Amino acid sequence: VVIETIFSPAQRLQYVLAFEASLARALVTAGVAPRGVEVPIAACCDPSRFDLDAIARDAVDAGNDAIPIVERLRAFVAERDTTAASFVHWGATSQDAIDTAFVLQLRDARRLFDAALWQLADTVVGVIDEHADTPIIGRTWLQHATPTTFGLKAAGWLDAIERHRARFAALWERALVIQLGGAVGTLGVLGHAGRNVGDALAADLRLRNPSLPWHTTRDNVAEVATTFGLLVGTLGKIARDVSLLAQSEVDEARELRAPDRGRSSTMPHKQNQVGCAAVMAAAIRAPGLVATVLSAIVQEHERALGGWQAEWDTVPEICILTYEALTRTGAILDGLEVDREKMMANISVTRGRVFAEALTFALAKKVGREAAGVMVKSLLRRAMEGNQELRESALADAQIGAVLTSAEIESVFDVRHHVAAAEAMARRVADGTRRVDEGR
Amino acid sequence: VVIETIFSPAQRLQYVLAFEASLARALVTAGVAPRGVEVPIAACCDPSRFDLDAIARDAVDAGNDAIPIVERLRAFVAERDTTAASFVHWGATSQDAIDTAFVLQLRDARRLFDAALWQLADTVVGVIDEHADTPIIGRTWLQHATPTTFGLKAAGWLDAIERHRARFAALWERALVIQLGGAVGTLGVLGHAGRNVGDALAADLRLRNPSLPWHTTRDNVAEVATTFGLLVGTLGKIARDVSLLAQSEVDEARELRAPDRGRSSTMPHKQNQVGCAAVMAAAIRAPGLVATVLSAIVQEHERALGGWQAEWDTVPEICILTYEALTRTGAILDGLEVDREKMMANISVTRGRVFAEALTFALAKKVGREAAGVMVKSLLRRAMEGNQELRESALADAQIGAVLTSAEIESVFDVRHHVAAAEAMARRVADGTRRVDEGR
Amino acid sequence: VVIETIFSPAQRLQYVLAFEASLARALVTAGVAPRGVEVPIAACCDPSRFDLDAIARDAVDAGNDAIPIVERLRAFVAERDTTAASFVHWGATSQDAIDTAFVLQLRDARRLFDAALWQLADTVVGVIDEHADTPIIGRTWLQHATPTTFGLKAAGWLDAIERHRARFAALWERALVIQLGGAVGTLGVLGHAGRNVGDALAADLRLRNPSLPWHTTRDNVAEVATTFGLLVGTLGKIARDVSLLAQSEVDEARELRAPDRGRSSTMPHKQNQVGCAAVMAAAIRAPGLVATVLSAIVQEHERALGGWQAEWDTVPEICILTYEALTRTGAILDGLEVDREKMMANISVTRGRVFAEALTFALAKKVGREAAGVMVKSLLRRAMEGNQELRESALADAQIGAVLTSAEIESVFDVRHHVAAAEAMARRVADGTRRVDEGR
Amino acid sequence: VVIETIFSPAQRLQYVLAFEASLARALVTAGVAPRGVEVPIAACCDPSRFDLDAIARDAVDAGNDAIPIVERLRAFVAERDTTAASFVHWGATSQDAIDTAFVLQLRDARRLFDAALWQLADTVVGVIDEHADTPIIGRTWLQHATPTTFGLKAAGWLDAIERHRARFAALWERALVIQLGGAVGTLGVLGHAGRNVGDALAADLRLRNPSLPWHTTRDNVAEVATTFGLLVGTLGKIARDVSLLAQSEVDEARELRAPDRGRSSTMPHKQNQVGCAAVMAAAIRAPGLVATVLSAIVQEHERALGGWQAEWDTVPEICILTYEALTRTGAILDGLEVDREKMMANISVTRGRVFAEALTFALAKKVGREAAGVMVKSLLRRAMEGNQELRESALADAQIGAVLTSAEIESVFDVRHHVAAAEAMARRVADGTRRVDEGR
Repeated sequence: VVIETIFSPAQRLQYVLAFEASLARALVTAGVAPRGVEVPIAACCDPSRFDLDAIARDAVDAGNDAIPIVERLRAFVAERDTTAASFVHWGATSQDAIDTAFVLQLRDARRLFDAALWQLADTVVGVIDEHADTPIIGRTWLQHATPTTFGLKAAGWLDAIERHRARFAALWERALVIQLGGAVGTLGVLGHAGRNVGDALAADLRLRNPSLPWHTTRDNVAEVATTFGLLVGTLGKIARDVSLLAQSEVDEARELRAPDRGRSSTMPHKQNQVGCAAVMAAAIRAPGLVATVLSAIVQEHERALGGWQAEWDTVPEICILTYEALTRTGAILDGLEVDREKMMANISVTRGRVFAEALTFALAKKVGREAAGVMVKSLLRRAMEGNQELRESALADAQIGAVLTSAEIESVFDVRHHVAAAEAMARRVADGTRRVDEGR
Repeated sequence: VVIETIFSPAQRLQYVLAFEASLARALVTAGVAPRGVEVPIAACCDPSRFDLDAIARDAVDAGNDAIPIVERLRAFVAERDTTAASFVHWGATSQDAIDTAFVLQLRDARRLFDAALWQLADTVVGVIDEHADTPIIGRTWLQHATPTTFGLKAAGWLDAIERHRARFAALWERALVIQLGGAVGTLGVLGHAGRNVGDALAADLRLRNPSLPWHTTRDNVAEVATTFGLLVGTLGKIARDVSLLAQSEVDEARELRAPDRGRSSTMPHKQNQVGCAAVMAAAIRAPGLVATVLSAIVQEHERALGGWQAEWDTVPEICILTYEALTRTGAILDGLEVDREKMMANISVTRGRVFAEALTFALAKKVGREAAGVMVKSLLRRAMEGNQELRESALADAQIGAVLTSAEIESVFDVRHHVAAAEAMARRVADGTRRVDEGR
Repeated sequence: VVIETIFSPAQRLQYVLAFEASLARALVTAGVAPRGVEVPIAACCDPSRFDLDAIARDAVDAGNDAIPIVERLRAFVAERDTTAASFVHWGATSQDAIDTAFVLQLRDARRLFDAALWQLADTVVGVIDEHADTPIIGRTWLQHATPTTFGLKAAGWLDAIERHRARFAALWERALVIQLGGAVGTLGVLGHAGRNVGDALAADLRLRNPSLPWHTTRDNVAEVATTFGLLVGTLGKIARDVSLLAQSEVDEARELRAPDRGRSSTMPHKQNQVGCAAVMAAAIRAPGLVATVLSAIVQEHERALGGWQAEWDTVPEICILTYEALTRTGAILDGLEVDREKMMANISVTRGRVFAEALTFALAKKVGREAAGVMVKSLLRRAMEGNQELRESALADAQIGAVLTSAEIESVFDVRHHVAAAEAMARRVADGTRRVDEGR
Repeated sequence: VVIETIFSPAQRLQYVLAFEASLARALVTAGVAPRGVEVPIAACCDPSRFDLDAIARDAVDAGNDAIPIVERLRAFVAERDTTAASFVHWGATSQDAIDTAFVLQLRDARRLFDAALWQLADTVVGVIDEHADTPIIGRTWLQHATPTTFGLKAAGWLDAIERHRARFAALWERALVIQLGGAVGTLGVLGHAGRNVGDALAADLRLRNPSLPWHTTRDNVAEVATTFGLLVGTLGKIARDVSLLAQSEVDEARELRAPDRGRSSTMPHKQNQVGCAAVMAAAIRAPGLVATVLSAIVQEHERALGGWQAEWDTVPEICILTYEALTRTGAILDGLEVDREKMMANISVTRGRVFAEALTFALAKKVGREAAGVMVKSLLRRAMEGNQELRESALADAQIGAVLTSAEIESVFDVRHHVAAAEAMARRVADGTRRVDEGR
């Protein structure tokens, strides 16, 4: 909800007005406008005086909403002070106001994102701490492979989240800059004073003044989309994993049960993984939206016909769906019900076949890989035909018994033995995040 | 605006309720529910009794909005008639209500689209009628090639629009069907009566009853996206062409000038092509959204986790932006200011070089293509060096004079001569549309 | 492999040459070129005389490969007959050759697609015939819902395939047309004879002559992409379903086991669902490629700068990956190992809870839905607490026993009872396809 | 061509073998395998012994090409040394080999990209140096706005290129890491020795050993796609600008003319902007491909079914088309023919209207903005009606003459006056790049 407020028309109006008020102060600071004009201008930059619906209607013909906003603002100021009215929007173009307003929205979003990413990382650290040594079957191509731990699974998620934090940091550094270029990005009307106006504007808005206006240089805007898109992908991976673990036959983990959550309109026994579904929906939607923003980079000359306009709905949509996916993923993991017993029990679903690789390697150390491979394949065939546990077949097998002791065979089928390295890897990743967070 | 109303939460609520009211009637018709229950149910299907914000809040945990709607409806009916309350949503699942509501929205959209497509076709027919023989330079790779007519350019647009009309007709035929499958698409609770309930429901809603429920069979929904996406592409092509013709140096056609339309916040002389920009923005946005819906086809088993949910915002968004692009294109072409003189004048920008191909072929008929090619290339070089009109160079050239008479050379440089076939082609396409429209 | 041959550079060369040979015949037929020139031209349209690598190199500077091909062809013909050389490519532009060659490739692809779609439909009919009454748990949101039949699941796939066949038929009808427009689509050099040349060319190539050239009217090309993209989506849905059924814990169906198929490089027990993975990869790749082709519709004026060129690699890629996904899906279903016993056994995984909806409705018919809901929720809670089968809990429950007889309760938990309508629905769809196929 | 070699099947084979040879050395270094086994393994890692076609055929059933490669390698080694054969691929999974091979390809690509980006930056610096003060009309919404300089236009391109260099540097840092995880990413068979094996492998291949295997943690791979996609967008913007400047009516800049470059198959006078078309085609293709890779991030559990496989063709395709777009953009700008006179002449196309904003502000400083606006609007109307130069109208206007002196009016219409700040901005950006480059 909060993220939607940031990207609402009301907030956009407020930030377009913040740009205009700040520009007035900057013009005065840089000596372009006479002292005092900033006062009535700032006073009139009061969102409550503006009618959003009327602005939206006017924007259809005007081509954007900054034009009707500036016109109204100028009229309001003129009622008080005609000199000041002269300096409303002086030297700026509507794109300056719109792009800077977007950056201000983005800065607000930054706070939400940084906090949510921090919290998600913390939550996953908690999952790792608790489950670094919880065995779970590793699944490749959706089928049982060999055991891993649930903590290592979570560590993979955390590892990506850490990289996303680095990408976000670089993004904010590049993207949180003012836009001020005037009609064609030359600061034309302001001339050489333009740089000073830009510096003062940036200081006033607590943004950076970039080396150049970026009316049709949109790599930063597109990087907002790609950076968010990358994150949504990772969130989708988490949601996919959880939803697969929550399948009725697997039943190893699931979202927190709560009255009314995930209920069915017809089936009283259902508890749908609605958080996972919402995150997956975001993961399905983001790539197409990112593609739109990438397509829109190709903007003509000094102001685009189509590309810039395509950003308006799309980039906020990406921000919103990413944030919602981020907080829902946090909630999923925060309340995750993990069933250690079911995880352990499921490892046995294949009646020990998931240890066939380990048995092969144990034998291979003694008789070489080829001979080991032949022995294990034959054992597997017989175990399946006899519907036997592979461990029992192995213990009963004379050929294998000639190579490995019973204790060695038992060790092969001991899941703890398999996941020792996994536990260490998982803990190392959690510790890394802990250090990063303590360092702040 | 109207299209946004169709896809608004309020309209969706109304159609979810329409589904429930209609289902109650169908249950009675099919003998599943006792006569009379449909009356209180229909009476309670009154949107004004439902709080959209509260429903939206509840939908987060429920996973969709039909669940809280149905729960409220059942409570309302129970206040009047507990037997009737039993039969609210009987045999249905929330997806039945949501998908059918979407189809009802789509049917409303159909009326708008059919009318707008008809009107656009009519408008383009008018452009063709007026400009079938208006010469304009043909441009390939953004550069002057050889002459065509503005009417033929428009005929290309119309040709595509006609095919889009055929695609839309096929789409409506396939897509305007009820959804009724129950929990997993078996009509389970309804059993063999299910088919009759479906038939009655379809008849009541004036939709078709498809051969099967389509909970996770989403090709029709995706075809909505692709069909609209194809149309937006054509509209983008029209907008791109018009905006290129409106460039200051070209200045051959432009959107209707009107006070306040396309004004700049800083430059008093500008008249921005805001209609074209809006259509181009739609053309940039649609492909990514279509990709989302195509990705979402892959829905798991009997109800999706993610894919279906990804459709909810995306498909209406495509419908809305397509319709807006459609009506704006109509407005662009309806008010299009065409400057015949400038079109004719621009043909001469290259000082006759655009007739070099025609000269080559005129010569080739006499001396063969290779010799003709050599003669024209040499002529082109000399004309450019001497900064001469190619026509004059050709008339003055002894070698060419030995092959073609002056009259033949003049004919080569006569633009009317070039566009006779173009005019005929353009008129034939316009006549085709006229026949289609008269046939209705 | 075959599909890759169709879209290979060698085949493209052959069809560009086929266009040129056919154009020569059409020019003669229409009286534009003197009788006899078609003979040496056709004779030189021999792919073995052309060096594909050299053509590819020349195409970089020329902008496309038809230009170097035509130049070489003209030189070859000139060695035999200079008059004939004059008429090589007469009146055409390189895009005429390239687009028509693409359409000829598409027509070859059509044969493969029609056959493969037919075969896939037949295969699915076989699955339905065999499994129309094979119970399987229906899964919604990836969790157990209520029972359906495996045949009905397959019927959902078939239902979509039937619609895809209709879409393909409409596509071929629209798309299999020649391209002939000359430099800017006016048939300029050919003048009024152009229509006759087009008719003769179309007849010779057994394609339709469309109402207009379509150099920058690309909706048909884009519809190739969208039509194929829709199909890939359905194939992805099938592959997703099969791969989920093949999970170790589910184990209800899987691709045909074969030595070496789906083997792991390290785990001897694995049998990866490699067919499903290939189809899923196609389903993930297609949407982005379709978006590209939709973006490319916006082509400037009479020949594009970028959009047309973007089609060249992308559209064949879509055709190839769709066909491979289609044949692999056919192979998956053709060899599908279905485990009826496991399907039946899995229905019991939730200890009867999947019949809770049925029990609710059975009770509701007697005591109303609300009372029934309360009774079943309470029963569910107690069954879960007592880790009891729901059927047993229900039989032992006094409150329920007061409403339903034991026989009625047993009937609720009888899976056959649930899927009778499903069987009928599945068979009806299979019969529909059978009728379509017999009708051919 | 070189970039295609890097991503060819032959190079991939070579790097899969390089991984296996290096792994053997690492196993020995870490004490897992006996000294000496690395020698015959490395000796057999000779690409010339492997049949790519046969491997491709086997890969269909195996699911990937590493499996048949490793099987053949093991057989080759076994001919020499059965102990060594045992340790082929020991502890690794096929994805370890394939992903590491991809990273090695990427590292080769890095060299090409870094050099090409450097060179492109240098080229643009040259354009800026030469044209920092070359006036050109600024164009917004594809229409004349106010003047800027061609150097500032190029500075906008350079500004983005500098940011792309920073993004690439961060990407290489993150992405150039080995993959080594064994069957499910636990390093299972290697146990605690696994970390040492990884370190040795990374050292041997001169890559980093990441904190965790990344079999299904694909953000880095997707960031390859997004980083390249962002760059292609900027290249597309450059190509779009150049191609618009090269339009026949504009004619301000164009690609280097050369015999045979951009020739038409039928029009002797054409010089198509084939470089721009190729870059634009890449810019149209990249977004869809990036979307595919973003979609593919959602990979299941410990190895994907579909997502990973979707990367195989797509990521190399993005790398190749980005590099080709990069080098072609370099060539376009390197040979760019800039027509300063035409640029200056075109500023006058609107008969001085592009100075209306400047006139407004000059007046506004004296009489306030509102009065100034009224005066200029009235002047514009009269100038257009009288088909007069705005400068002359202004000089003749009594009202304006009462506010501004003739010299002040002349100064308003002096383009040099307008672009002084633009020149400074452009030079500052070029100097920034120069400093970066000298710093290396």
